[in-house]
Amino acid sequence: MSLKILTESILPAIESELQRQVARLDEPRTRPFYEMLTYHMGWTGEGAGMDAQGKRIRPRLVLLTAASCNADWQSALPAAAAVELIHNFSLVHDDIQDKSDLRRGRPTVRRKWGEAHAINAGDALFILAHLALSELRDRFTAKVALKAEAVIDRACLDLTRGQYLDMSYERQSGLTIKDYWPMVAGKTAALLSACTQVGAILGNVDEATQEAYRDFGHYLGLAFQVHDDYLGIWGDSALTGKSTDSDLVTGKKSLPVLYGLGKDGPFARRRAEGPVSAEEVPILAEQLAREGAKAFTQETADHMTDLALQALRQANPQAEAGEELFELANLLLNRQS
Amino acid sequence: MSLKILTESILPAIESELQRQVARLDEPRTRPFYEMLTYHMGWTGEGAGMDAQGKRIRPRLVLLTAASCNADWQSALPAAAAVELIHNFSLVHDDIQDKSDLRRGRPTVRRKWGEAHAINAGDALFILAHLALSELRDRFTAKVALKAEAVIDRACLDLTRGQYLDMSYERQSGLTIKDYWPMVAGKTAALLSACTQVGAILGNVDEATQEAYRDFGHYLGLAFQVHDDYLGIWGDSALTGKSTDSDLVTGKKSLPVLYGLGKDGPFARRRAEGPVSAEEVPILAEQLAREGAKAFTQETADHMTDLALQALRQANPQAEAGEELFELANLLLNRQS
Repeated sequence: MSLKILTESILPAIESELQRQVARLDEPRTRPFYEMLTYHMGWTGEGAGMDAQGKRIRPRLVLLTAASCNADWQSALPAAAAVELIHNFSLVHDDIQDKSDLRRGRPTVRRKWGEAHAINAGDALFILAHLALSELRDRFTAKVALKAEAVIDRACLDLTRGQYLDMSYERQSGLTIKDYWPMVAGKTAALLSACTQVGAILGNVDEATQEAYRDFGHYLGLAFQVHDDYLGIWGDSALTGKSTDSDLVTGKKSLPVLYGLGKDGPFARRRAEGPVSAEEVPILAEQLAREGAKAFTQETADHMTDLALQALRQANPQAEAGEELFELANLLLNRQS
Repeated sequence: MSLKILTESILPAIESELQRQVARLDEPRTRPFYEMLTYHMGWTGEGAGMDAQGKRIRPRLVLLTAASCNADWQSALPAAAAVELIHNFSLVHDDIQDKSDLRRGRPTVRRKWGEAHAINAGDALFILAHLALSELRDRFTAKVALKAEAVIDRACLDLTRGQYLDMSYERQSGLTIKDYWPMVAGKTAALLSACTQVGAILGNVDEATQEAYRDFGHYLGLAFQVHDDYLGIWGDSALTGKSTDSDLVTGKKSLPVLYGLGKDGPFARRRAEGPVSAEEVPILAEQLAREGAKAFTQETADHMTDLALQALRQANPQAEAGEELFELANLLLNRQS
């Protein structure tokens, strides 16, 4: 990954803004509580560092979008921190809901401190996000700051709806590809589209341009999730790594799985018989590909990517920031793991 | 309980405002998710009704305080709904953390839908609270609305710190009464003091009066919790009802328990030996009283009550609303169960 000049200054700024926001909880009496958060954010504890922090995609989208609108991206830092804190709040709670032991290669908060503390740590990240957002009011007009907040609150509500659908699908049968989109729109696209929309709102561009940026984030989110679903079955780690990571084993209702179930062929019949073992994964993945799911998923990802890039071109991002936005989109949509 | 005239119109207004706010999640595709929330709020499902809704103490405090400042309490309804939604978000997550099966006499959300859905339902209530709060901006000046929001966000952060302390105390030894106050200040008093402070902010009274109302809520919260701790050992249901409800069995580090542990006498020695059975409760409660904990707890509750009422008198609440505020305080502090 060749970082461009702007991104090279944005990344450390995001990290220090996040640290400043989370430091609201840095008090002697509750130090171990604070440390749960700094651990999860990737700053402290075993394995701390860049890999543990994740790619910070969401704050990068906010800041690059603001810069693409010719605005001063530094003023938008509290919004960037807020969306990353919201993303991390949802990860901490997700890991409890999925009973996950690992996140970005390290033990989850749930694993290290137990579910009760993990629930509370996630709640705290969410509140910190709101406190971060409230700082926008000192930097922008009331109208701009409040619109940005409203967009993010709305995205959070959509996030809980998507999460509900995702969890309830696990036990539902008879689902089709039609059921896929509202779930993914909430779970993945809502926050990403809020990132680009908020960047544009803070960038003070006209309504139509704000909507183009919002659409860019929305389709980027859909493309990202479809690509993720592809990797969940045909990616290296799903096929050749620990096959227990394969969506075929976890039973996740991903896009290729829903496609395969809809075909009502050998794949669907095998699924109806019960859980799939790690050993079966390569053969079943091959079968699913033969039924057309692999090509369909790839085509869908390509289509969503086209829609995302089309919206971005329509938004007409300016200068270097615009180039780096296209580059970030490519980074997200072409990753192999 | 003889309801006064104002409270009689306030209670149904709170309920319909809450229903309006929660209805943001009323969409066909996620109807069962919405029903988790309406169930928890006491409006739907088996056992729905007044008892399942709770006393709505927090929104009543907001509205009666606003009315005591000669303001139109109806304008403050979104803030009242917000604090009740925050309270209920914390209850839903509490019930997971404590593995509770019952809440207000009905199965908890956790019990009915499982932990994963309960985490998400709690998250949704919290987001709905923020969306409710954002409506204040249409009804008050930006300065007033934003101050009210900041006070509530700050209280939420304190809530997570108090929750952390409460959970971590369960496994800590060597705690003293000094450790009690920061925990209770966060867990109980932070939100109650935010209620009265926000009522006063929306009531547009001077800074000193806002602080007096905040102190009223703060000491009311402390008095309420100390009284609750008293009932947790010497209340009817702790002693003669299901003794498993006694704080002596659950091992909670309540004020009388911390007092008794500090005495290092027969009570502390018995606790050091391990879990207490339901059968032992009456004798151990008696022993704890003999060591002075019962009188100490009662005196502390009385002292905090005095401080609360003193602050309320200093705030000088106006008209009928003022009388009803005193009455609500008495209702809270003299309950026997």
